[in-house]
Amino acid sequence: MTDRRRTILEGAARVIARRGVRGLRVSEVAAEAGVSTALVYYHFKDRPGILRHALAFIGDRADRYTSAAQEPTAAGPEDPRERLERMLLLEFQDLPEVRENSTAWGELRAHSVFDPELREELATAGAAWAAEVAELLTVACPGAPGPAAGAAAERLTALLEGLSVRWLSGLVRQAHARELLRAAVRLEVDRLAATIT
Amino acid sequence: MTDRRRTILEGAARVIARRGVRGLRVSEVAAEAGVSTALVYYHFKDRPGILRHALAFIGDRADRYTSAAQEPTAAGPEDPRERLERMLLLEFQDLPEVRENSTAWGELRAHSVFDPELREELATAGAAWAAEVAELLTVACPGAPGPAAGAAAERLTALLEGLSVRWLSGLVRQAHARELLRAAVRLEVDRLAATIT
Repeated sequence: MTDRRRTILEGAARVIARRGVRGLRVSEVAAEAGVSTALVYYHFKDRPGILRHALAFIGDRADRYTSAAQEPTAAGPEDPRERLERMLLLEFQDLPEVRENSTAWGELRAHSVFDPELREELATAGAAWAAEVAELLTVACPGAPGPAAGAAAERLTALLEGLSVRWLSGLVRQAHARELLRAAVRLEVDRLAATIT
Repeated sequence: MTDRRRTILEGAARVIARRGVRGLRVSEVAAEAGVSTALVYYHFKDRPGILRHALAFIGDRADRYTSAAQEPTAAGPEDPRERLERMLLLEFQDLPEVRENSTAWGELRAHSVFDPELREELATAGAAWAAEVAELLTVACPGAPGPAAGAAAERLTALLEGLSVRWLSGLVRQAHARELLRAAVRLEVDRLAATIT
C-alpha cells in the first residue's frame, strides 16, 4: 500500500470511530487525512469504495495486534487453549489503537444491518476469523469433529462481538468482559474435549 | 400511555429500524407518526427524550413477545431449560414486528458507543434482562451458585446480541443462529449443573 492510501485509510478509521459511518462525507475523510477530496476519489473511486477499503484496513490492523498472540513466547511452547484465550482477549485492551479499531469495526458491522454494501466483505472477514478460531480449537482438542469446532468458533466470535459493544459503550468493564470470554473459551474447549471418543 | 404517545413511539421505532438513529430528525418521527413536530416536542421534550422513551417502548415490546414463552403450555409443565431456550429463541423470528424491534434495539445499542445519552437506560434494561435469564437458569439448575448463574446469563445475552446483528445483516441464517444459541444454553446449563455439589 502506498503511504498516501494508508494515510487516507487511517483517517477514515479515525472518523468512523469518532462519529460513525452514517452521514460520513468523503470531504471529512479528506480533511482528517490532510489531503484533497479529489485525491480520496482518485484512490478509492467513491464512498462505498472508501468504506470497503477501510473495512479491510481495519481488519488487517486487528490481525496485526492479535497475531502477536500466536508468536512462540520466550517461556517455550504454550498450551493451545491459552494461546486461543490470549488471541481473543487482545480484542479487549485499553490502548487507543485497539479501542479505535474495535469501535470502527463494530460500527461498520452495525451499519451493514441497514446497508448491504459491506455485507460480502464482512462475511469474508468473519469467515476467516471463525476459521482461525476453529483451527486453534482443533489444536487444543485434537480429534474434535470439524463441525463442532466450527460451531464453537462461531459462538466465541459472536460472543466477543456482543461483549465488545458492551465494553465500548461503557456497559461492562474491560476486566469483566475478559473474564466472561475466558470462561466461554474454557466451556467450549471442555465440551469439545468431551466429544472426542 | 395515551394513544398519541404510543403512535409517536411506534413511529420512532419504525424510523430507527429503517434508517438508524444517527441523523434522525424529530420532524421525521412526526411525519412517520402523522402528527405535528410540536406535538412530538410537547410529549417528549427533545430528541434525547424521544430516544429514551423509544428505547423503553422497544424494550417493553420485546418483553411482550418473549414473555409468551413463560406462559404454561397446554402440554403441562415444561422443562425449565426448554422454557429458557424458547424465551431466547423468540428473539429470532421472521416476523416484521420482531425484526423491526430487534433492528431498532440493536441500533440504539450501537449508537450508545458514540453517545452516552442512552447508557443508563441500556444498562438498566440489560441488567433486568440478564437477571431474568439468571433466574430461569437457577430454576433449571436448583442450587447453582448465584454468581455462576449471573455470569452464564451475561454470556448468553451477549451472545444473543452478537448473533442478532449477524442475523439482521444477513450474515447468518435464522435457523443457524437459533441452533448456535440453543447449543450455548445447553452448554451453560450443563456446566451450571456440574457446579452443584
